Amino acid sequence: MPLKDKYHLRIPGPTPVPPQVQRAMTQPVIGHRSRLASQLIQECSERLKPIFGTRQQPLIVAGSGTSALEAAVVNTLSPGDEAVVVVTGAFGDRFAKIVETYGIGLHRLDIPWGKACEPEQLADFLKKHPGAKSVFLTYCETSTGVLNPVAELARTVRQHSDALVIVDGVSCVGAVPCQMDDWGVDIMVTGSQKALMLPPGLAFLAVSERAWQVIAGNRQPRFYLNLEAYRRKLEQEDTTPFTAAVSLLYGLKESLSLLEEEGFENVCSRHERLKNITRAGIRASGLTLMADDRHASPTVTSIDASQEKWDVEAFRKKLQSHGFYVAGGQQHLKGKIFRIGHMGYCDEWDILTVLAAVEVTLSQMGQSVEPGMATKAAQEVMMDV
Amino acid sequence: MPLKDKYHLRIPGPTPVPPQVQRAMTQPVIGHRSRLASQLIQECSERLKPIFGTRQQPLIVAGSGTSALEAAVVNTLSPGDEAVVVVTGAFGDRFAKIVETYGIGLHRLDIPWGKACEPEQLADFLKKHPGAKSVFLTYCETSTGVLNPVAELARTVRQHSDALVIVDGVSCVGAVPCQMDDWGVDIMVTGSQKALMLPPGLAFLAVSERAWQVIAGNRQPRFYLNLEAYRRKLEQEDTTPFTAAVSLLYGLKESLSLLEEEGFENVCSRHERLKNITRAGIRASGLTLMADDRHASPTVTSIDASQEKWDVEAFRKKLQSHGFYVAGGQQHLKGKIFRIGHMGYCDEWDILTVLAAVEVTLSQMGQSVEPGMATKAAQEVMMDV
Repeated sequence: MPLKDKYHLRIPGPTPVPPQVQRAMTQPVIGHRSRLASQLIQECSERLKPIFGTRQQPLIVAGSGTSALEAAVVNTLSPGDEAVVVVTGAFGDRFAKIVETYGIGLHRLDIPWGKACEPEQLADFLKKHPGAKSVFLTYCETSTGVLNPVAELARTVRQHSDALVIVDGVSCVGAVPCQMDDWGVDIMVTGSQKALMLPPGLAFLAVSERAWQVIAGNRQPRFYLNLEAYRRKLEQEDTTPFTAAVSLLYGLKESLSLLEEEGFENVCSRHERLKNITRAGIRASGLTLMADDRHASPTVTSIDASQEKWDVEAFRKKLQSHGFYVAGGQQHLKGKIFRIGHMGYCDEWDILTVLAAVEVTLSQMGQSVEPGMATKAAQEVMMDV
Repeated sequence: MPLKDKYHLRIPGPTPVPPQVQRAMTQPVIGHRSRLASQLIQECSERLKPIFGTRQQPLIVAGSGTSALEAAVVNTLSPGDEAVVVVTGAFGDRFAKIVETYGIGLHRLDIPWGKACEPEQLADFLKKHPGAKSVFLTYCETSTGVLNPVAELARTVRQHSDALVIVDGVSCVGAVPCQMDDWGVDIMVTGSQKALMLPPGLAFLAVSERAWQVIAGNRQPRFYLNLEAYRRKLEQEDTTPFTAAVSLLYGLKESLSLLEEEGFENVCSRHERLKNITRAGIRASGLTLMADDRHASPTVTSIDASQEKWDVEAFRKKLQSHGFYVAGGQQHLKGKIFRIGHMGYCDEWDILTVLAAVEVTLSQMGQSVEPGMATKAAQEVMMDV
């Protein structure tokens, strides 16, 4: 049995919260309309800009990531409009479900789960659906560990149409390069509980000027998720239209400091390295990686266990008995894959440990495992051998 | 200048968070789909039942109170339906705005701010609008400190129509008696940052069987705020459809323990007493109470300063320099009233202190104040003189 509370949260979010951030959140609660709260909101929004790669003011919503995905839909589209949704996994599928819920004509580009969408596939699809007003993309598809080539995909959209480019960046923004302005992304969404190292409860959106124009003309009703209200309150009063989750904002300020101290380029290369270590270790254990090298996400790695003789859910349970939490598969991948999160407050030694735990667990399940293969491979990456 | 972080948050929410609750929220983050999270969600929902006075399972949304107000609208009504909204202040007005946003026929019963809605007024109004499918009420109107007689108003609705009774209980549920099942309330809404002594970020709804039937037949699209999805996930898997704000749930579990230890009847009588002390002190200072005795809320007291010679906003600023935060007026009451919150983690001595600070501040603003009048009156109530 693991020591009490000494567990290893290696799921692709929520991610571990650094002690500094925990401490920041225990500051006494302040009024959401106080000067202190306004300073906090204004400062956090300002300091989120480089994370998104934008000159726009990121907006802060009290809600989970899905609230911001829905905001991106209801603010830009109305019933009868058409939209293209690229579905590479469960979160692309969620975007599609939101679009359908609101009576928007859905053109769904389904990519086999575990693969990325290639720009050519998207280009062909857009030619067939020239009426689409928005194209929805997933940056990191959390359910498969695939990082879609968002910069190229956004460029493809811009070459073929005037559609807005709307990106779910929930499980990677803050850990991977993001230059939404340069890439031509119109709305980028993320959440607090992933690379930003906070508990769940905040969602963030950055919106291009082009998208603001569409939003201004869009008649779809929205209230809590009315982005124009968020923009107006932020620009005019440095605040949010509805009560801000102030304790999480205190945490956000601190987690932004951590990212800034490390340097955002270093943060990205750390995640790149964590990915490489994870993949090297998994390969050395004789396990099968789901995503290919070119499209593997720096934030989460999926292991395809569909051909293994052992039961994935029994394996995850056994791993938990050592204090390690990894994620299972979603929808049709349930029982077929497991996923190791390596984003946010995570270093190389955290990965070394989970790799060792995977080997120990498989051995305990009666699999023939040569101990040390995964950690050796991990160390080789660390040593740049 | 007050000592750092040693301030007195006496606004009607967010309210101070008890140290036990702060500590509970610093527990390591857990996966939102873990067994631990499910236990937490199930247990919190179960223990919220007596707070709402219901046999239904309260639902937990990651969002601020307004998200739950909107959920109550979009789940029960569709464009073309009619609704009655009783507006006794800024939060009744918010309900009306949400109703209008969604193209629902709004029948607005405006009551002068500072007054409660009387059952006879509602009865007359309902007779004029027999087609209303829902009637929206505010339990405590935060902007004025009026506690509307919700039990009587709900009974009135039931006598006159089949409309659903939907109540905003954000700034009082958890501090005042609430028997929604017995009263015939169909949807009761509250938030985390008021009587429940948590930071902002959670909203709660309890829904009657009658309302569930209406919801099942309602075609208005909704996704993040789809209450049927919350109910299904809670009943079938003890979880939420979207990532739960797990750290706040850890806090909620602890704050429910505090309420249970004190005993919910004692919690209600404490708030009643805090109201009486506040009102006695304010009267003794020669200031004017906004709400009458019969309809004053146990959670917030508004002081009508519209006839005073001093400037309310200057007064609030000066009071802040002593470390005391009270709220100003909203909308047309801005600059005319101030509001003292006395809910949640608040005791008699907290009120004695703020009353003394009000006197000291008024004296510093050049008003002729006899020191000790307010605290004397407060102590007399404490001593049951």
